[in-house]
Amino acid sequence: MLDLPFLPFCAFLGGLGFVCVAFVSAWCQHWRGGFAWDGSAQMFNWHPVLMVTGMVVLYGAAALVYRLPPAWRGPKFPWKVLHGALALAAFVLAVLGLVAVFRFHNDHGTPNMYSLHSWLGLATVLLFSCQWVAGFSAFLLPWAPTWLRALYKPVHIFFGSIILMLSVASCVSGINEKLFFSLKNGTMAYKLLPPEAVFANTLGLLILLFGVLVLGALARPSWKRPDADSPDSCQ
Amino acid sequence: MLDLPFLPFCAFLGGLGFVCVAFVSAWCQHWRGGFAWDGSAQMFNWHPVLMVTGMVVLYGAAALVYRLPPAWRGPKFPWKVLHGALALAAFVLAVLGLVAVFRFHNDHGTPNMYSLHSWLGLATVLLFSCQWVAGFSAFLLPWAPTWLRALYKPVHIFFGSIILMLSVASCVSGINEKLFFSLKNGTMAYKLLPPEAVFANTLGLLILLFGVLVLGALARPSWKRPDADSPDSCQ
Repeated sequence: MLDLPFLPFCAFLGGLGFVCVAFVSAWCQHWRGGFAWDGSAQMFNWHPVLMVTGMVVLYGAAALVYRLPPAWRGPKFPWKVLHGALALAAFVLAVLGLVAVFRFHNDHGTPNMYSLHSWLGLATVLLFSCQWVAGFSAFLLPWAPTWLRALYKPVHIFFGSIILMLSVASCVSGINEKLFFSLKNGTMAYKLLPPEAVFANTLGLLILLFGVLVLGALARPSWKRPDADSPDSCQ
Repeated sequence: MLDLPFLPFCAFLGGLGFVCVAFVSAWCQHWRGGFAWDGSAQMFNWHPVLMVTGMVVLYGAAALVYRLPPAWRGPKFPWKVLHGALALAAFVLAVLGLVAVFRFHNDHGTPNMYSLHSWLGLATVLLFSCQWVAGFSAFLLPWAPTWLRALYKPVHIFFGSIILMLSVASCVSGINEKLFFSLKNGTMAYKLLPPEAVFANTLGLLILLFGVLVLGALARPSWKRPDADSPDSCQ
């Protein structure tokens, strides 16, 4: 493949992640009434912002830690801690994002967990929690045996990409669902493609592009840490 | 990783693909009024069936052709033809699936291409058409130079997985959207989780599982054709 340097790519990806967070925040602020933490529709608005920021952007940053050239040299432990810390921050934002939607539903008497979006989204966060606990136990606790690390490492890497894929699918179905909910009575219908619909659809495509670029960076052989394919996973 | 034989996995995956097609057909037949090709709601019902059959199940089968142990021996050309033919069949079904939804919309005065699902779905099919034409030109036409094949091969492989991921995300958002459309006036609301909602949500999760298993099979090093990482891509 053409030789593409990682750092300019990484800067572009960081900019794209920032644009995703800015877009989802602007959507909720400008068209959906802004933010609050009181069980109202403004509380719901934290849900898309926290999920996109946590499960897509921060998660993507965590996934790419080992692709940074400084991570190729010296001890691996600090980079493992950074990887785990970014993933933990992503998980905390995701949990707060779930609290926002459950509290909004409960305060309005709306049932929880009926749509395919909700099934997929919760499954993704649960899978992510398993991935974090298993990764922490296998790679950060000092007493995990080397054979277990070597056995689990490809599984952890594979599910890392899968969880990002599921997050992106959750975001797309969630944005689609929210627009069908919001753009009907008293507003311009979704099918007439008002500015809000164009804006939020574009947000969905930007999130997809971010996910695809992270998966592409992870798959690129020349950006992998030279020892990435060895069974060595010691601290 | 644990040594898992490909053929039993493949049989399970074939069964799961069959179950996905059976589920989407049963949903449209039992709850959505069955099938016709006359611009009615029964014509729309071909859309989910053809998209799931083409862009997920047949596409997944095409992607895994080179993982079949018989494809590891002897000339590669017949397997390339099978790969291309299965992908072409998937593409034809996808185009028919698009015809079904556009004709239904046009006959009912409904605008086309407004939802994020429609943007994502059409982008996926367009990307797939580019992938097929580029793959055919680079790998099946005899005059493509070896350096071009070597350059394009990892791109083709990467986008092969990405298009499957986008297809699955399109299916999930489409099922979610259809249930919000269908389960409201004159029927039991989606949020009360009637049997149709449970059935179609389960279909969405089965499609996701199928996609994840195909991506897992593609990523598994021991199932790759031994020369898969070499730049050789001659016939």
